[in-house]
Amino acid sequence: MKLTVVVVSDRVFLDPSSDRIVRLVEKLARSEGFDLDYEYVPNDETLIRLAVLKASLRSDIVVVAGGTGPGPRDVSVDAVKPLLDKELEGFGEYFRRVSVEQVGVRAALSRATAGVLGRSLICVLPGSPRAVELALREVVLPIARLELQVIRGESHWEGLEVVVKSWIASRDLEVLARRSFTGPSRVVLVAACRAEGGVEVDVSEISRLVEEVEREHGVKISIMVSPTARAGSVAAALSVTGDDWRSCYKALGEILEKLNPPST
Amino acid sequence: MKLTVVVVSDRVFLDPSSDRIVRLVEKLARSEGFDLDYEYVPNDETLIRLAVLKASLRSDIVVVAGGTGPGPRDVSVDAVKPLLDKELEGFGEYFRRVSVEQVGVRAALSRATAGVLGRSLICVLPGSPRAVELALREVVLPIARLELQVIRGESHWEGLEVVVKSWIASRDLEVLARRSFTGPSRVVLVAACRAEGGVEVDVSEISRLVEEVEREHGVKISIMVSPTARAGSVAAALSVTGDDWRSCYKALGEILEKLNPPST
Amino acid sequence: MKLTVVVVSDRVFLDPSSDRIVRLVEKLARSEGFDLDYEYVPNDETLIRLAVLKASLRSDIVVVAGGTGPGPRDVSVDAVKPLLDKELEGFGEYFRRVSVEQVGVRAALSRATAGVLGRSLICVLPGSPRAVELALREVVLPIARLELQVIRGESHWEGLEVVVKSWIASRDLEVLARRSFTGPSRVVLVAACRAEGGVEVDVSEISRLVEEVEREHGVKISIMVSPTARAGSVAAALSVTGDDWRSCYKALGEILEKLNPPST
Repeated sequence: MKLTVVVVSDRVFLDPSSDRIVRLVEKLARSEGFDLDYEYVPNDETLIRLAVLKASLRSDIVVVAGGTGPGPRDVSVDAVKPLLDKELEGFGEYFRRVSVEQVGVRAALSRATAGVLGRSLICVLPGSPRAVELALREVVLPIARLELQVIRGESHWEGLEVVVKSWIASRDLEVLARRSFTGPSRVVLVAACRAEGGVEVDVSEISRLVEEVEREHGVKISIMVSPTARAGSVAAALSVTGDDWRSCYKALGEILEKLNPPST
Repeated sequence: MKLTVVVVSDRVFLDPSSDRIVRLVEKLARSEGFDLDYEYVPNDETLIRLAVLKASLRSDIVVVAGGTGPGPRDVSVDAVKPLLDKELEGFGEYFRRVSVEQVGVRAALSRATAGVLGRSLICVLPGSPRAVELALREVVLPIARLELQVIRGESHWEGLEVVVKSWIASRDLEVLARRSFTGPSRVVLVAACRAEGGVEVDVSEISRLVEEVEREHGVKISIMVSPTARAGSVAAALSVTGDDWRSCYKALGEILEKLNPPST
Repeated sequence: MKLTVVVVSDRVFLDPSSDRIVRLVEKLARSEGFDLDYEYVPNDETLIRLAVLKASLRSDIVVVAGGTGPGPRDVSVDAVKPLLDKELEGFGEYFRRVSVEQVGVRAALSRATAGVLGRSLICVLPGSPRAVELALREVVLPIARLELQVIRGESHWEGLEVVVKSWIASRDLEVLARRSFTGPSRVVLVAACRAEGGVEVDVSEISRLVEEVEREHGVKISIMVSPTARAGSVAAALSVTGDDWRSCYKALGEILEKLNPPST
């Protein structure tokens, strides 16, 4: 896991020896198992945006420190907001609330915020060491691991997923496919089987089979079955996701074979 | 009064038996005198938007449950925000604050929000039953009735409205008309009378008359009078609003007759 | 220092005698050393926007009172937001939090906010005297002076600014220039000196000189020096800022002379 801190300050950019942030963040981040990277940029919207974009490609968390005040050269928030896929307004709210308790009412005007960019969490914080330490200790680091899982969609996939529907519509297939393709897995296979001459499916048998195949091949299977599908209608739809192409492929084959027994 | 809950969840859409929200909301809503309607939609921006639009046309309150996290398929907030006439940022703030007290700091990252769409209040909440119950019990239901009145502009109209101005400008007439036409009433009549040969108006008599006519016809009257208007200038401007065409018309006639006594 | 209050209310616009805000704000503002100006406008987006723009040109703080609720004629927030250079979301958050403690949960839905417009702080508050007093007493007035300094970029310039870099890049010059030109000063002079035949600079001597010249001419100097620059590379970059053209010019001359001793 990697955390990159982007220190935004004209002064520090011109004179890196005046920086008091990087060492502080390094200590806090390492104690939580993060490797640290850092960059110094001046209070310039374009340069901040480039630094954050670059950092987000190779970091789990990007911390921008500095440039969140109401001054004319405080442009970090304006630089980062347009990059975010999702802004998490509650982060700034919570941080300001804790800050006001510690520092007084002026902290209420900080524009600190956070959001999701691709697979990374971006936090924009004031440049004072005290504020950075407060934010990392009280908010960012305690929630980082779990939140990163959610950001990457991993927590949407839990337990055995066998859904029984009397009738499987094309809309259901579309939702299943879209959900699978936008999930976090490297490999995704989606299949739908139509019933030939009508089928009767034993749901508990399907559940056992899915569980067995998931375990054997290290994949995740979602399956919808229509237990009494008529000829021509969809009897089952399924997706297999995982990190390894061959495992997913084999798992799909085994399930399909089971669902379509050779006509005797 | 009707409350519609839109449950946003791929899983529940594919397998409605796994829903734990609708029954919970029904119990809470009915105890406050709301009828309940509901719909299940998958985590899909377009489908959520359509469901909310449709629900807003026939509900006083629309509760969207699910899809407020930072994950890739959490798109409810992105779906609803562009629909809102006004976002009420304070709703999400307050909800997050109460949630953090109950659930811990991770609740600070929820993107829950609320806003006004037409004549309805829309709330976007996390999908956990605990969060939905908290939001409904602590925020939505306690303020619903009063807030809906404000949303519909009803609370802008209180008490007798007789304004005395020495000189009534065309700008005053425009403001009176605009305010009346954008108010919540079904019928709006606006009139202005010019003084013929100069008038003297007794304001307390006008107040009595307005009160009497309002009571008799069940309408709301706003009136501006210039007590010593010169010939040609505006002596009075008034608006009559109500739900019934005939009552408004009669009320206007009575007021105008009083303001323009037949020249003897 | 001047504070302008823009009272937004159809009723007060039509009947100024019903206003209860201006006198209240005047009392609070004068006790903090602000002169007061005021204007009444109806609940009309365009008129509110014009009033705020006009007020911002001649006031340090503009308080908009009224039109922050969820009703159809509550348009003050929609009128002001597009004008702001920076929105300070934390202001509304903090105000709502304090209000909920005093008034109850309905205060959570206020859309009150604040932001920076040019060199002024703009606050948009509910129209009730109680809310206006709370916001001014608890937030606006306590932080006004310090915050206005930050808004105007004044607090970015503190203490002696002598930066020592082994190598001064063109990027450094660009940052120095941009920072100087976007600062709050009336006069800005920026210069860069290349080394002729290699130079050796005594940094502590430069610091003494800068301090002396700043004091003598009442200007602010930022200087970057490369203590052992080679011929052709940049040996020093500096900016002189102040309110008086002649003082800045003289100060620059004295520094340049020191940095480029006549070849003997």
